[in-house]
Amino acid sequence: MLHHPKTATPDHPIHDLIANRWSPYAFDERPVEQEKLQSCLEAARWAASSFNEQPWSFIVARRESQTSFSTMLECLADANQAWAARAGVLMLTIAARLFSKNGKPNRTAEHDVGLAIGNLSIQATSLGLAVHQMAGVDLSKARQVYSIPESHDPLTVVAIGYTAARGEDRQFAERDLAPRSRKPLREFVFTDAWGTPDI
Amino acid sequence: MLHHPKTATPDHPIHDLIANRWSPYAFDERPVEQEKLQSCLEAARWAASSFNEQPWSFIVARRESQTSFSTMLECLADANQAWAARAGVLMLTIAARLFSKNGKPNRTAEHDVGLAIGNLSIQATSLGLAVHQMAGVDLSKARQVYSIPESHDPLTVVAIGYTAARGEDRQFAERDLAPRSRKPLREFVFTDAWGTPDI
Repeated sequence: MLHHPKTATPDHPIHDLIANRWSPYAFDERPVEQEKLQSCLEAARWAASSFNEQPWSFIVARRESQTSFSTMLECLADANQAWAARAGVLMLTIAARLFSKNGKPNRTAEHDVGLAIGNLSIQATSLGLAVHQMAGVDLSKARQVYSIPESHDPLTVVAIGYTAARGEDRQFAERDLAPRSRKPLREFVFTDAWGTPDI
Repeated sequence: MLHHPKTATPDHPIHDLIANRWSPYAFDERPVEQEKLQSCLEAARWAASSFNEQPWSFIVARRESQTSFSTMLECLADANQAWAARAGVLMLTIAARLFSKNGKPNRTAEHDVGLAIGNLSIQATSLGLAVHQMAGVDLSKARQVYSIPESHDPLTVVAIGYTAARGEDRQFAERDLAPRSRKPLREFVFTDAWGTPDI
């Protein structure tokens, strides 16, 4: 798999699909092929979840369906609308609050949506697609627009699409050219007690 | 990559690493090599997160460090202790409640821990390791045992290790031989409104 300028620079070897995943701002307006989108959703489907509850739901809006796409775009924070308008697909993620088997609260529902979107992101990367997730969403508007029941919570919007050729989109070039950074492992991997680094 | 009897049976093509990931009960007590564990943690490190906050922390306990391992094992629900006792590594996941940049609540912190563990699971699969996540954890005990500050929430424990040879561990064979199942896409992928399947 080809590396690119935004490929991660890990301290320990990681799989190319994980190293090559990144969150671009500059998308190129090309539609996402239906079969690729289905594979991304299928990957999400096979994630692990507590008691196999699969607490995730998704509402999909494709760029080609203009009304559908505009409706979701308008649920985003302005700063996100500026770049997400060029993505091929926008997708609202939703978590079920309660276990379907007994109606009790599912405390890991949002975490498990993260597992599903983790899978989706890896699948997308393997198909040459990019994913950029957004927390900057007007959640109450999304709930109203899509008639999401009180038993469920809208959570994020995920942009899926093709990355614009490098430098083509000058508006976002600076953000997309910035080096990627992460905390070192010793700052968040501990052993025996909080704050004791696991050498 | 070799398929196995628990490989997913997807309706649309998905990457082998996603199809081959599953959550076994029967681990074989073999230790996890340090370099493999580091690669798994490194994969988690490169996950996406809201404002690149990286709200995840982990406490690692290796089977070889008996006291360390027993301490974490005893934070698990009894039903989980029964099988997790044979995993090579147990790892408590922890979410930071607040953004470090401004002290405001991070509503996607638990979701983003899910993204990190999604990466870790894929990396583990690529190295021949299996991962089984648990929500059945005594969280207040874990908080106390590991002195986790109020600013952070313990979330899950992740077992990482080698799967036992098929049928070797009769106690868990039935659970590990059961077919895997997932809801069909039409039950959770919608368009335009909640409940409207995205054909």
